Amino acid sequence: MNSQQLIDQIKKKQSVLCVGLDTDLDKVPKHLLTLEDPIFEFNKAIIDATHKYAVAYKPNTAFYEAYGIKGWQALEKTINYLNTNYPEVFTIADAKRGDIGNTSSRYAKAFFEDLGFDSVTIAPYMGKDSIEPFLAFAGKFTIMLALTSNPGAFDFQTQKVDGVELYKKVLETSKSWENSDQLMYVVGATKAEYLAEIRKIVPDAFLLVPGVGAQGGSVDDVFKYGSNANAGLLINSSRGIIYASAEEDFAETAALEAKKLQEQMAVHLQKLS
Amino acid sequence: MNSQQLIDQIKKKQSVLCVGLDTDLDKVPKHLLTLEDPIFEFNKAIIDATHKYAVAYKPNTAFYEAYGIKGWQALEKTINYLNTNYPEVFTIADAKRGDIGNTSSRYAKAFFEDLGFDSVTIAPYMGKDSIEPFLAFAGKFTIMLALTSNPGAFDFQTQKVDGVELYKKVLETSKSWENSDQLMYVVGATKAEYLAEIRKIVPDAFLLVPGVGAQGGSVDDVFKYGSNANAGLLINSSRGIIYASAEEDFAETAALEAKKLQEQMAVHLQKLS
Repeated sequence: MNSQQLIDQIKKKQSVLCVGLDTDLDKVPKHLLTLEDPIFEFNKAIIDATHKYAVAYKPNTAFYEAYGIKGWQALEKTINYLNTNYPEVFTIADAKRGDIGNTSSRYAKAFFEDLGFDSVTIAPYMGKDSIEPFLAFAGKFTIMLALTSNPGAFDFQTQKVDGVELYKKVLETSKSWENSDQLMYVVGATKAEYLAEIRKIVPDAFLLVPGVGAQGGSVDDVFKYGSNANAGLLINSSRGIIYASAEEDFAETAALEAKKLQEQMAVHLQKLS
Repeated sequence: MNSQQLIDQIKKKQSVLCVGLDTDLDKVPKHLLTLEDPIFEFNKAIIDATHKYAVAYKPNTAFYEAYGIKGWQALEKTINYLNTNYPEVFTIADAKRGDIGNTSSRYAKAFFEDLGFDSVTIAPYMGKDSIEPFLAFAGKFTIMLALTSNPGAFDFQTQKVDGVELYKKVLETSKSWENSDQLMYVVGATKAEYLAEIRKIVPDAFLLVPGVGAQGGSVDDVFKYGSNANAGLLINSSRGIIYASAEEDFAETAALEAKKLQEQMAVHLQKLS
């Protein structure tokens, strides 16, 4: 997928919603647990119910690895289901990987080629040669952590390096890397006021914004400070959508929550287009 | 495993060698490829041949994820084989994970409880609440990236934050975290001269040192600048050992290379004990 296709989908659906598939067997409705693959069945129902309101889906790999082989099988089935049934949707492997060059190439191959995700999230600590192997895959996006939504973001990310915060240094430096037009950045909605500064550094890039809902961020603030002429945003909600109900109506309830967010987004997207 | 057991093993084997199981089907001997699980068969042969000279084994998860379900099965079989046959050996999942609190807990459960590794490597970019969930597991170690062996280490890690390099800030800050006595740190052998400074900040911690051999670091320099009264080191070699031969004699050749490194280490360890 290229960025124009993503932009077209955003305009069509009037949404920048990304649904986080952080699927946890302790939280899914009990009646699914008797099925052979409850993780996939849950994801499938959530995707079918919410795809009209969402432009992206983001499984966090931690939740799948926690179930070992069965978890990986569920992840494979989920991405295959998305690619087969909803090819217009942008898919994100939220993996936060990063290693020395030849090893990063392995991760890139796993997520881009074997699993077939459109994008993968990456941690920047190891620098240029840990990220460029991901950027080498044409038509794929690398979403680098910049300023995350958790309290620990203040431990290092906002510390000043030569008078400028580390996350700004990360943003600025990454612009010089090969194929940097395939970069997107993670910026937490809990720090919406920082978005205006970030937009000055990366005016054209897409920002993946977690932290709306359960973590306290607001859709309106994210648009106010972070949008560009193409929206340039993917706003993620995980728990607030997928666990809105733990009963048999979980999928319809998830759709209602997704629709609520989509309607908030549409107000801002109408202004843009 | 606790650190005293690791120290005892180091004294007994006169070695701080960690063998990196970066198993790549393009590089293993051709005769293994007809077997049902060539990744595991390769690892098993390498472990059996080298365990007299090595105190730790470190599969890098990227190499296993690159083979999808089959890769995860091979990883599971490898850690089970180590835990069953060589329980004295220290095991490291080189995963370089890190996410917001509840998600990091998932990774910790996957690597410590389900797979049964003694330790896992972690990236520090997301700060305290991304690491403490790993430290919450008693009897397990969390090995945090400090100064890595790759060229990209100079992009951010050595940049000055309030007059002190970021990797030093990471080391210093981590000492205040809960259960910080269960922390170890990754410091590349390609930057051995930095080890003396690092030892001042974390005098008692174990350092996991990659980059000896193929990447150019030296065992003697690592001991010279980085050892403490208990050695306090785990020196990793991957390619230099496991791919020393691609013929039928690969395991014996790996053992010879491991023995060479162990003998270099023994010279320094005799001085210490």
